[in-house]
Amino acid sequence: MPNNAATRAERFASGMAALDSIHDDAGHGVIESLADIAPELGHQIVAWGYGDILSRPGLEPQQRQLVTLGILTGMGGSDAQLEVHIGASLNVGLTPQQIIEVFLQSAVYCGFPRALNAVAAARKVFAERGLLPLD
Amino acid sequence: MPNNAATRAERFASGMAALDSIHDDAGHGVIESLADIAPELGHQIVAWGYGDILSRPGLEPQQRQLVTLGILTGMGGSDAQLEVHIGASLNVGLTPQQIIEVFLQSAVYCGFPRALNAVAAARKVFAERGLLPLD
Amino acid sequence: MPNNAATRAERFASGMAALDSIHDDAGHGVIESLADIAPELGHQIVAWGYGDILSRPGLEPQQRQLVTLGILTGMGGSDAQLEVHIGASLNVGLTPQQIIEVFLQSAVYCGFPRALNAVAAARKVFAERGLLPLD
Amino acid sequence: MPNNAATRAERFASGMAALDSIHDDAGHGVIESLADIAPELGHQIVAWGYGDILSRPGLEPQQRQLVTLGILTGMGGSDAQLEVHIGASLNVGLTPQQIIEVFLQSAVYCGFPRALNAVAAARKVFAERGLLPLD
Amino acid sequence: MPNNAATRAERFASGMAALDSIHDDAGHGVIESLADIAPELGHQIVAWGYGDILSRPGLEPQQRQLVTLGILTGMGGSDAQLEVHIGASLNVGLTPQQIIEVFLQSAVYCGFPRALNAVAAARKVFAERGLLPLD
Amino acid sequence: MPNNAATRAERFASGMAALDSIHDDAGHGVIESLADIAPELGHQIVAWGYGDILSRPGLEPQQRQLVTLGILTGMGGSDAQLEVHIGASLNVGLTPQQIIEVFLQSAVYCGFPRALNAVAAARKVFAERGLLPLD
Repeated sequence: MPNNAATRAERFASGMAALDSIHDDAGHGVIESLADIAPELGHQIVAWGYGDILSRPGLEPQQRQLVTLGILTGMGGSDAQLEVHIGASLNVGLTPQQIIEVFLQSAVYCGFPRALNAVAAARKVFAERGLLPLD
Repeated sequence: MPNNAATRAERFASGMAALDSIHDDAGHGVIESLADIAPELGHQIVAWGYGDILSRPGLEPQQRQLVTLGILTGMGGSDAQLEVHIGASLNVGLTPQQIIEVFLQSAVYCGFPRALNAVAAARKVFAERGLLPLD
Repeated sequence: MPNNAATRAERFASGMAALDSIHDDAGHGVIESLADIAPELGHQIVAWGYGDILSRPGLEPQQRQLVTLGILTGMGGSDAQLEVHIGASLNVGLTPQQIIEVFLQSAVYCGFPRALNAVAAARKVFAERGLLPLD
Repeated sequence: MPNNAATRAERFASGMAALDSIHDDAGHGVIESLADIAPELGHQIVAWGYGDILSRPGLEPQQRQLVTLGILTGMGGSDAQLEVHIGASLNVGLTPQQIIEVFLQSAVYCGFPRALNAVAAARKVFAERGLLPLD
Repeated sequence: MPNNAATRAERFASGMAALDSIHDDAGHGVIESLADIAPELGHQIVAWGYGDILSRPGLEPQQRQLVTLGILTGMGGSDAQLEVHIGASLNVGLTPQQIIEVFLQSAVYCGFPRALNAVAAARKVFAERGLLPLD
Repeated sequence: MPNNAATRAERFASGMAALDSIHDDAGHGVIESLADIAPELGHQIVAWGYGDILSRPGLEPQQRQLVTLGILTGMGGSDAQLEVHIGASLNVGLTPQQIIEVFLQSAVYCGFPRALNAVAAARKVFAERGLLPLD
């Protein structure tokens, strides 16, 4: 763990680099949309979420996305965040088929309704990217 | 997708082979404990969960365990199942450090209480296997 | 809907009669255990929950217990309440086999971990009543 | 439990007969909508959910729908699935008044917000069928 | 606790006075919208929720709204109710900045997705009241 | 927002001062218990949770605890964390009666089972401090 001092701006910049590495416009849009109402929330998502936690070396980007898809599917009520992270999962190299396999697997642990909601989120993302129909 | 006929017993045997490949006594104990009260539930976990879904080729065992750890942490109230799947995660080659990293990451998406409960489950499993303290 | 006036004590008495009709010691123990810390919560469970809502004529007692078992299984983190309501389900004439069938069905909608937790609660209740092993 | 062999197609056909017996277009639409993105999920909902589990003899169709309405209300975040199962509940003979009574009861166990979301789903289904206002 | 008799209509009137004291059109609209489908649910929200519980003297209105915002954010899947209670929170004197601070705090305990959903609900309410951008 | 540079150790120290201000042994025990298995999680709870978020000036300590009690009750499956935060709520000056009032209120929004679990957590904390029976 590095212990050199970092300013608030430096921590944000570090997190934004991590965010840039996996997200496209959808991910950045979340942060920008907070500017007029909850900018500190946006700052913390970037500086802490992406900078301090998600950029740690212990797991590969694809592994982290599998965990995130699992959490969001399991907790429910997170359809908007699922869309963003389905896009990020594609960005780090998971295939559409692997993402759907995650949701099929989720039916075993949290039931068909959560799986169906997650597939509905995937449909939006895959359609925007011209990936449908899947083979 | 194969379309050859399978009996109920054949489907169960196929699922049990899949279960055997990732679980030790803890996983088998769940199924056995259902024998006197809900044997059909045990059958379906094995024949459907492990046989039909979790043994599909689309994701590697380590990938599936990352998804499962994510789901169970995110949905909460699944501490007993987390223990079984933390053990399975070790069995398929995830390191204790990677498992803890999953739970640290989960704090970003479902908060510290869920992460703390998951680490408490990991403590039980790691202690039983003599893995504590982690480096 | 009757509109005759009722006192607080009369509403409580009405609810307690409804509670008596489906619960044994386990259900009454919940209310009594609140006496030294949250007696108003106990009062409201009885007067409102049992008196105003659960004693309404629209559903039969067995139907209401099926709904309650479904809710408690689906929401998770309600193992103590599941135990009380598994007992009540037996009291109103649902068989142990039907109760287990509810939990098997729940796997379709909220996954195996919730089903397993519910069966673990059923095991405690069925064992206390000498109902195990089930045929 | 029968142990005669069944092919994948036979298991699907058996489940589809069970699905046909309780669902109309809304239920079938869920399966069809998965064809271009997650056909295996659709297959498993039918072959396993309806074929292996929901067509078991231990509970009557009305009883199963009461359980399902309870689970979906309790777990939250399942509004689309609630709509489908409110329709199915009507199809198997539950009255609109009984369905609303389920959601009123749910307030006792999972609070008014979940009850309100469930009634909002019922409104859509009842309106489509010309059942509003309820007496 | 008063033990004088009250009719159903008196209890409803008492609750409506409590509801009036914190809610504007959004809160009243919820009750009115139930008239043709679940009037008893509307009655109970008012007579029991507002009359019996929320008008108790133990907590100030601002304190109660902080609790309610916490519950709704934590349980998820309650966006419509969050909107109503964000409005009520403003009505009882919490500032927009305090409300956003609640949701930032919620990230610690239930993660960023729940916090983001809550801020999205706040955006709707704040925009309707011309409160954006926040300073 | 200060933008002066801080080291990892300085951020931890700042958070620990915030944690010290509301928690006694129970809160510190959580962090210490992570030392041999997930020290980074303990660091982040302190440095980020307490240092960056919970010590912000927008809400008073009593207000923050009301929010936290609400979140933990609403999300369920967080009994251990509820115990710690019930203790902290007492430490910042909320009375036992106010804390119980929070849980009674929670029944309106997330149902009696969550309220009962929260009161069970309160019982442990209140008993340890010799506060039972409540007046």
